[in-house]
Amino acid sequence: MYFAIFGQWKKMRGQLDKWLTTATTYATEKKFDPNLFLQFRLAPDQFPLVRQVQAACDTAKLAASRLSGKDAPTHEDKEQTLAELHARVQSVIAYLDGFTEKDFAEAASKSITQPRWEGKTMTGHDYFLEHAMPNFFFHLTTAYALLRHNGVVVGKRDYLGTLTQRMP
Amino acid sequence: MYFAIFGQWKKMRGQLDKWLTTATTYATEKKFDPNLFLQFRLAPDQFPLVRQVQAACDTAKLAASRLSGKDAPTHEDKEQTLAELHARVQSVIAYLDGFTEKDFAEAASKSITQPRWEGKTMTGHDYFLEHAMPNFFFHLTTAYALLRHNGVVVGKRDYLGTLTQRMP
Repeated sequence: MYFAIFGQWKKMRGQLDKWLTTATTYATEKKFDPNLFLQFRLAPDQFPLVRQVQAACDTAKLAASRLSGKDAPTHEDKEQTLAELHARVQSVIAYLDGFTEKDFAEAASKSITQPRWEGKTMTGHDYFLEHAMPNFFFHLTTAYALLRHNGVVVGKRDYLGTLTQRMP
Repeated sequence: MYFAIFGQWKKMRGQLDKWLTTATTYATEKKFDPNLFLQFRLAPDQFPLVRQVQAACDTAKLAASRLSGKDAPTHEDKEQTLAELHARVQSVIAYLDGFTEKDFAEAASKSITQPRWEGKTMTGHDYFLEHAMPNFFFHLTTAYALLRHNGVVVGKRDYLGTLTQRMP
């Protein structure tokens, strides 16, 4: 299921990219600088939009890299415009495009760690379920909430994107 | 993986329950009615906290029911207090407690529909990935964002909960 879930995340990164476009249109209509969005926050001590988008990108990128063992592209977290955030999102979509189901064959049993865990490890299975998945959706939804709170006209359909539905 | 993911959602419902307790403490300290939280919104035309919590509950409950074929408890969406929302959350945790891995053996190939889809269907696999999972985290994170935006002191650790980490 790892590969399928990353496929879904890739789709949702595409949705995020559309919200950023909608935000640009909204700012242009209201005659304010669209890049102001990057520093908006829901709380004074919560990360602003730019960091939420970066974190949503990194969660997907690093999870795919850690669970597959394939190197991830580096990003310097220097985005200052919505155009640069678009490029960041597109770069992660392109990275996720390079995977096949086979890349995640050993994912569940991998030993995962990161610097802030002070030597502790998680299995790939636990890391994906308990850390990567909730974090990915956390930063994605917080980015959405920030735009929605500031007047950008996005709705649940823009969040979910097109569903694979069939006529009976 | 369905059963494992529902296990994770159950854990995150427990975290949500803690945020509601933190919100009650915060309101008591600041001397305002904690139940005011239920009607707070991030945008005038977005659902308030009470509906976000109900939707997070329903997404988990209905997904488990549809993918397993087991009846779900009904809830009337009449909560007016944080105590009633606590009870709603606990009721869904109790429902999720009743499942075993075997209940989801046929989940991926089930045919899923709901009234607003006008006769269209999704496979259990697509429904879970494209609809249930993003919706669950959407409503959970929006509930968190609403509390955070209104001053409740919750952080990322309260969102994720305890991680299954091992010393090497």
